[in-house]
Amino acid sequence: MISVVKIGGNVIDSADSLKHFLDLFVQMPSPKILVHGGGKMATRLCQQLGIETQMIDGRRITDKPTLDVVTMVYAGLVNKQIVAALQARHCMAIGLSGADASLLPAHRRAATPIDYGYVGDIEQPLANVAFLRSLLQQGITPVVCPLTHDQQGSMLNTNADSMACAMAIAAAQIDTTRLTFCFEQPGVMRNIGDPSSLIPHINREHYRQLLAEQVITKGMLPKINACFQAIDSGVGSVCIKHADNLLSDAGTIITP
Amino acid sequence: MISVVKIGGNVIDSADSLKHFLDLFVQMPSPKILVHGGGKMATRLCQQLGIETQMIDGRRITDKPTLDVVTMVYAGLVNKQIVAALQARHCMAIGLSGADASLLPAHRRAATPIDYGYVGDIEQPLANVAFLRSLLQQGITPVVCPLTHDQQGSMLNTNADSMACAMAIAAAQIDTTRLTFCFEQPGVMRNIGDPSSLIPHINREHYRQLLAEQVITKGMLPKINACFQAIDSGVGSVCIKHADNLLSDAGTIITP
Repeated sequence: MISVVKIGGNVIDSADSLKHFLDLFVQMPSPKILVHGGGKMATRLCQQLGIETQMIDGRRITDKPTLDVVTMVYAGLVNKQIVAALQARHCMAIGLSGADASLLPAHRRAATPIDYGYVGDIEQPLANVAFLRSLLQQGITPVVCPLTHDQQGSMLNTNADSMACAMAIAAAQIDTTRLTFCFEQPGVMRNIGDPSSLIPHINREHYRQLLAEQVITKGMLPKINACFQAIDSGVGSVCIKHADNLLSDAGTIITP
Repeated sequence: MISVVKIGGNVIDSADSLKHFLDLFVQMPSPKILVHGGGKMATRLCQQLGIETQMIDGRRITDKPTLDVVTMVYAGLVNKQIVAALQARHCMAIGLSGADASLLPAHRRAATPIDYGYVGDIEQPLANVAFLRSLLQQGITPVVCPLTHDQQGSMLNTNADSMACAMAIAAAQIDTTRLTFCFEQPGVMRNIGDPSSLIPHINREHYRQLLAEQVITKGMLPKINACFQAIDSGVGSVCIKHADNLLSDAGTIITP
């Protein structure tokens, strides 16, 4: 059983919550894979450098200066801080982007209807599963940042949820895989801010119903779509939960 | 035969010279390892962020904000740009720091006589040779940035010549290894700026003589010391040459 865990920006952004999360993560049995974001830190560095941040539907427009910033923050600062912290906890971590060993090749998203700039959509069939297998067999834990490459020399900014999904789909070719999205909420809730309204289980039929009732909020939509995409592509189970609950069963489980 | 090649800051700093260098590098037979610097770009980002750069004897004093900058520039921007460029040239590159898979663990340099801050000295016996062997056996080309970790959770800024040396010493445990330092000069010269004064061959006795005659300049000293250290630790041959001459025999060869 391979565990793929994604942590979002809010967990990374606080040194204390990241430390707490990593303390839990190292207790998970191997093989395991960590996928991280880092958008808030990228926005901050953009501000410091006078680069304007433009978002459409929560997605960053990535011009060349912004691509350089996210490459520095995601593959540099955040990735290596996590790798060093895991190594200190005796977890044999390795930091990777989708470009390294061409783990997750991508293509630049078409400029219409919206030109997102240097943003990548992953070419799942080209994922380097053989290399991933070799790492996991050596007891190494990949720490993956949300960047891919276009196979023509450019890095591409890539959605971290999509990266986690793609890693889980690749891992599912090696062994049974479960994918866990960790963030700062207990899971999918009927009423945001009310943990007692947590929905413990969503299947596709239930999902259609929730969409019709407009219970699923805009920010949650791409995450749940990614969950179903993962399940359709061989991932055994998907869970959305609070980062503090990494080792417990709490959260929302998504099934076919 | 494993080739370890180090490229310095001036080659990286110009997009054209980097492109030209990578065109040559991909023509070298595998297995091969590339080690890069990036100091000039780090200095520029420090300036943009209002972080003062302090150098003593050509070595950067690395406080916490500077460590964050070099981690972003070396492991992020420079490393991934090179990896993406090599992948576009069909070279199966992987970007690594000394922290990744604990390839080159280090310890923080003692604060006396000079406190260099977050600067690492490599713990050569702890190098992860097994992981390096696995990469090379898979036909993967490591692209190594000048950062290590202290095994206690912190990254450390590390001299790129020392990184190249350490990678060559690790590689020499796997197969015969040659180490090449590429920079913007044709090699070691009696008179800087006069290519006709190139010294084609230096052995230890000759080196003592050159030191006595004060022919070896301050900037070249640590590089040549590193060369002899590599040779003493099993590296077959070491060469210092112009980046344009990567595929030719031109340059200064160092032998015992």
